Amino acid sequence: MDVDKHIVTMDDYNEQSALTVNPGIEQPPVVNPEAIAQIRRNRPKPMSVEQYVDGILSGNITILSRAITLIESLREEHNDMARAIVESCLPSSGKSIRIGITGVPGAGKSTFIEAFGKLLTGAGKKLAVLAIDPSSERSKGSILGDKTRMVELSCDPAAFIRPSPSAGSLGGVARKTRESVILCEAAGFDVIFIETVGVGQSETAVHSMVDFFLLIMLAGAGDELQGIKRGIMEMADMLVINKADGSNIQKAMQAQAQYKSALHLFPPKASGQPAGVLTCSSTEKTGLREIWLEIQEYIKLVEHNGFFASNRREQTKYWMYETVHDTLIQKFYSHPSIKQELKHYEEQVCNNRMSPFTAALELLNLRNK
Amino acid sequence: MDVDKHIVTMDDYNEQSALTVNPGIEQPPVVNPEAIAQIRRNRPKPMSVEQYVDGILSGNITILSRAITLIESLREEHNDMARAIVESCLPSSGKSIRIGITGVPGAGKSTFIEAFGKLLTGAGKKLAVLAIDPSSERSKGSILGDKTRMVELSCDPAAFIRPSPSAGSLGGVARKTRESVILCEAAGFDVIFIETVGVGQSETAVHSMVDFFLLIMLAGAGDELQGIKRGIMEMADMLVINKADGSNIQKAMQAQAQYKSALHLFPPKASGQPAGVLTCSSTEKTGLREIWLEIQEYIKLVEHNGFFASNRREQTKYWMYETVHDTLIQKFYSHPSIKQELKHYEEQVCNNRMSPFTAALELLNLRNK
Repeated sequence: MDVDKHIVTMDDYNEQSALTVNPGIEQPPVVNPEAIAQIRRNRPKPMSVEQYVDGILSGNITILSRAITLIESLREEHNDMARAIVESCLPSSGKSIRIGITGVPGAGKSTFIEAFGKLLTGAGKKLAVLAIDPSSERSKGSILGDKTRMVELSCDPAAFIRPSPSAGSLGGVARKTRESVILCEAAGFDVIFIETVGVGQSETAVHSMVDFFLLIMLAGAGDELQGIKRGIMEMADMLVINKADGSNIQKAMQAQAQYKSALHLFPPKASGQPAGVLTCSSTEKTGLREIWLEIQEYIKLVEHNGFFASNRREQTKYWMYETVHDTLIQKFYSHPSIKQELKHYEEQVCNNRMSPFTAALELLNLRNK
Repeated sequence: MDVDKHIVTMDDYNEQSALTVNPGIEQPPVVNPEAIAQIRRNRPKPMSVEQYVDGILSGNITILSRAITLIESLREEHNDMARAIVESCLPSSGKSIRIGITGVPGAGKSTFIEAFGKLLTGAGKKLAVLAIDPSSERSKGSILGDKTRMVELSCDPAAFIRPSPSAGSLGGVARKTRESVILCEAAGFDVIFIETVGVGQSETAVHSMVDFFLLIMLAGAGDELQGIKRGIMEMADMLVINKADGSNIQKAMQAQAQYKSALHLFPPKASGQPAGVLTCSSTEKTGLREIWLEIQEYIKLVEHNGFFASNRREQTKYWMYETVHDTLIQKFYSHPSIKQELKHYEEQVCNNRMSPFTAALELLNLRNK
């Protein structure tokens, strides 16, 4: 497909394509000149910043979606627009509960998000589900990924699901997600989930952009913990032991008791609220209401003791500094002479032939030339 | 005192001063022109890099001490010499066990270090005790601090105690400590303690420069945990419950059992070895031998499974990158226009008047002018 300056994504294509997927009927190949011509005729006209902002503030999901695509774009002219849109939406942001959700692979995170999400939309909430996964393909994001995992929620008119952006660095991905949060809040979403996998660096990033951090686990501490990075448990505001159903109920309740006493031995959290340990079954839809009640209780308490507001302020400052540092560092490493010499210095340092500080100094001097 | 270009520290002064402290006799005031003239006459001649290195390699503690003072110095000509000394000592470094020791205030860390240190020197080890405390006074380091806390160990000829360097940033302090480790190892020390307080950021730094990380705690989980930063517990290779004596023995053993089961529920450590939980009494000198045995056992295991070597390589690389990043960032913030505008941007961002990313961008653009 010949891609010109206008945004042409699979979303656009699906919106206007003449190729409707009818099960059972063999489809012509994707590259269909007639279909492409039709897209070009029907292509939405490029919008101004004002039009984007108006659309978002009135809750228009299609426009919200395109704005997020602008944020995720790697093109500089899109970035400039995106930034202007985000700044304009900023005054209307902030009015949601941001919940980070992580868990080991296999803990049933997607099923949980679907079931818990449906509980929230059923209670009248507008829910956005975003994701941070720095390993996601360097394309314009995985289109089908989340929608096949959470079929029911994808079809829910009160829910908006967006896959992880891809970007050069975790810092880039985190920034784009945070900007998307601002837009979703301006569009009127009450609750925002930010999902991540529990095995990388993204948990710290997610923890720094949410009001509440939830860790999904399985009963029977042991092998499945292999997947969790140390430090994440201490970060969580709540541990949820999933799959508490059938013959597994006993084990789940045992694990709940064990983790409750374990967490009691650990330093208190900055919020002043100890982390809760709950069980649930995403398939049988039990325990979910209790989780939501406890989250609401937590939010009430930390709004009252001032932690909610101070935490958000700290997070905002953190992101300003993180972005400055990330940019300085990325600029440094993109310098051609640095790229060339980095491996050499790493080797010298690992083989104890040069102290890491001298290596750092020489690298920095390279840059100054 | 008129300080000229040669290093004149309290160490030098005490070494050659005509003012001997005789208890009971009133001492003349410190500024004694005759004493100063005598110091100048007896001042050690400035040494070359080769002389420093030879001295260190032959185990000369006075020369080691001066070299570390060079490392800690804020003067650039001293830094150049220091770097040369460190590079020359590097091939002779690495042959010690590096143990990080942290704990809440009140857990009896100093008493523990003294008692445990005496055990090690008693077993024929040469022990160096260094410290990281970024809050230490911006002078040339607190001279008496540690020596009054650990009187017995200070007098032990096989022990070398050095207070924390002071520096502009944690990165600076950490670097100087790491360079001091290299010199101590070249001077023949078998075990190096790196001490820190459990409440700040320095634990991550210490954890990144040691082979084994030890957390000193009290029995009766509760208030004293207030002092530990979350995440430190998960970092520890061993929890030591101190003050297991007298009427407290029962509580200590209970706490030991509780923490053992708690730690069992947490993700495994990268080393493959679960963290141990031991009790001891630094005053009655019980439990210390067991701690040393378990540390030696751990070292044997991780040397065998390759983790010891790979961990050290990762740490060295980490310090190279950390130093690069730290320098880039410090340079950025020292720029006059940045210093001026930083508070303004922080405020804008905290009051939601500007997104943190736009603020970061504007700050970065300031620097480019």
